[in-house]
Amino acid sequence: MEFRVLHRESRTAARVGQLQTAHGVINTPTFMPVGTHASVKGISPQELREVGAQMILANAYHLYLRPGHKLIHELGGLHQFMSWDGPILTDSGGYQVMSLAENCTVTEDGAEFKSHLDGSVHHVTPERSMEIQEALGADVAMAFDECLAFPASREAVEPSVRRTTAWAQRCRDVHRRPNQALFGIVQGAHYPDLRQKSAREIVSIGFDGYAIGGVSVGEGKPLMYEMVEHATAELPASSPRYLMGVGLPEDLVECVARGVDLFDCVAPTRHGRTGWLYTATGRIQIKNAKHVHEEEPIDAACTCYTCQNFSRAYLRHLFMSRELFGLRLNTIHNLHTLTQLMREISEAINRDHLNEFRGAFYARRGITLSGNAETVGSTSGHPAFRRTLEVPV
Amino acid sequence: MEFRVLHRESRTAARVGQLQTAHGVINTPTFMPVGTHASVKGISPQELREVGAQMILANAYHLYLRPGHKLIHELGGLHQFMSWDGPILTDSGGYQVMSLAENCTVTEDGAEFKSHLDGSVHHVTPERSMEIQEALGADVAMAFDECLAFPASREAVEPSVRRTTAWAQRCRDVHRRPNQALFGIVQGAHYPDLRQKSAREIVSIGFDGYAIGGVSVGEGKPLMYEMVEHATAELPASSPRYLMGVGLPEDLVECVARGVDLFDCVAPTRHGRTGWLYTATGRIQIKNAKHVHEEEPIDAACTCYTCQNFSRAYLRHLFMSRELFGLRLNTIHNLHTLTQLMREISEAINRDHLNEFRGAFYARRGITLSGNAETVGSTSGHPAFRRTLEVPV
Repeated sequence: MEFRVLHRESRTAARVGQLQTAHGVINTPTFMPVGTHASVKGISPQELREVGAQMILANAYHLYLRPGHKLIHELGGLHQFMSWDGPILTDSGGYQVMSLAENCTVTEDGAEFKSHLDGSVHHVTPERSMEIQEALGADVAMAFDECLAFPASREAVEPSVRRTTAWAQRCRDVHRRPNQALFGIVQGAHYPDLRQKSAREIVSIGFDGYAIGGVSVGEGKPLMYEMVEHATAELPASSPRYLMGVGLPEDLVECVARGVDLFDCVAPTRHGRTGWLYTATGRIQIKNAKHVHEEEPIDAACTCYTCQNFSRAYLRHLFMSRELFGLRLNTIHNLHTLTQLMREISEAINRDHLNEFRGAFYARRGITLSGNAETVGSTSGHPAFRRTLEVPV
Repeated sequence: MEFRVLHRESRTAARVGQLQTAHGVINTPTFMPVGTHASVKGISPQELREVGAQMILANAYHLYLRPGHKLIHELGGLHQFMSWDGPILTDSGGYQVMSLAENCTVTEDGAEFKSHLDGSVHHVTPERSMEIQEALGADVAMAFDECLAFPASREAVEPSVRRTTAWAQRCRDVHRRPNQALFGIVQGAHYPDLRQKSAREIVSIGFDGYAIGGVSVGEGKPLMYEMVEHATAELPASSPRYLMGVGLPEDLVECVARGVDLFDCVAPTRHGRTGWLYTATGRIQIKNAKHVHEEEPIDAACTCYTCQNFSRAYLRHLFMSRELFGLRLNTIHNLHTLTQLMREISEAINRDHLNEFRGAFYARRGITLSGNAETVGSTSGHPAFRRTLEVPV
């Protein structure tokens, strides 16, 4: 896997690049839709292309439990199984083991847990995670890490960071699959020095790319952005950087400016299924009565299939009638909006105009950035972030 | 609306024709997918075209209650509302009022009932049904009829047939919308003489087409086919004939042979959502363990999007994981199978080979037709029909 930075923004840490994978080249920064069970909920591979998705994420934990990584391997791997011939990244399962599974016990060796599906007992180690991800055959595999719930005490985070580093080394040692990149994951919760320490240790092992994990777990946006800054400061400029589980529109703007290249999040798909639709001026909830008579599309400027063909009134009707097609149309729109946003961000970076873009982004939402809007790094704690947190996921 | 019979099969009552509607010409016989709430569950208008759907059905009762026929009218009518520019037929609501609504009271004037959504009280008359359907603006509206549950006593059916005729006359009298055809509906439950009487009365009023209603309500296939024969015997050969709520593969074969041109049924879509998939040799239930490892598509000969891109193993995985995309892929396949079957039936009619086609259809399913297989009209009560009834809906 090769990563080339094509342009660095002059006044922020943002960059535009290209990531070469076994299934094609992707332009960064980019947002990866989440296909937990080898399917982006409700969306076809063809539609993923149409909404501008370049790379998708699937989940090793879920696919290991059902239908099983061996079955997928036997059927030709994840790409063939789900009929998506573009790049795929698999999450290692660390996050799911600790958030979804029952009775999870973490030891130095790995994690023992009960399946959330049938209560069966499983033991996943770094070596086992690599075996699972190699069988799935994604273009990018992730190291097996420990992700703590927020807030975690310093006493809990310190050994956890040590463990994550040790596990990362074991992943690196056993990973063999050719044409599959391996990314390390930086942890450290909300402790700046531990984020720094974790980043340095993971970088010293040496990976094809570096992820920032354990964010967006309830710490709030200001703290999250601050941790992103502490981590990216330690990551090599020549490697791709991936912020895990983050992907609201404002998060993309803010974290690209902090040097992140890759994002994934269930937000646009889950928001779509729950009726929250993204527009240039903010989010709307399609079930609200004010949309009953609206002939216009979700966003008049949007070129997605949904906005080109259907009114808000129709989408509201589908939502109120619990029609499957509505979930799909909403999801198409939200995904398209994020990929379009990423294209606009990339253009702004290429023109060294990211701060101006960012100001206009908030202005369209009726949010005036006070203070030094030109320095993205100074915005932590700004009321804008509290305002943009008000949408339930 | 114009209907032209292009070819009559020499040994059955089947015919191939063309129906000219305000939104284009359709080739008959044809199957209409059901879009109850102005959406064929999970399927886009574009996919409806791709699966070969020519005309779809929407439901006046459901759309009257939600979002309201006036809103749809205000938004440009049903075609524009749902972004489907092909022909649409609206069901009058008679069947739903009597099967879905609560506390339904039928008088000579019409039906009073409580909404199944919110308990609100509504009064629908033939005149009101015409007003609703004219506002929706489908290409074909249906007369408001009374549909009885099975089994209905002769004492209940006789006044009901009289009422259906009186209502049909009132619908005919008030229907005004240009470019909207109006079909009458034959009732009469499972009484041959009452089917004949109803058909004669409805025909004497004069409609653009004739439907057979009140079938597939639990009477069983032999009785249903017999009632279709009694009704079609009385219907003018020059008008389109529509069998309401019927649409399993074997029903299409049998009832086209009895002179029916149009069908609608929730079966292919509902079967798709419940994992029952149609193949040339019968139905499969995708959740069965035997499909876990199957690399092949649902049907190797099928050219639908699902069969061209996805294995049974993947479809089973999606079904077991309750993934939305699986419901859609299954539905696409079943709809495509029915429209493809209709094309094959039409070819067989054009070649005067429908009985041979019918024999081969059952042979592929391992069903040998004993008796006089050449006379379709003689098959009522054949064990084949009981065998093909075993799929739960």
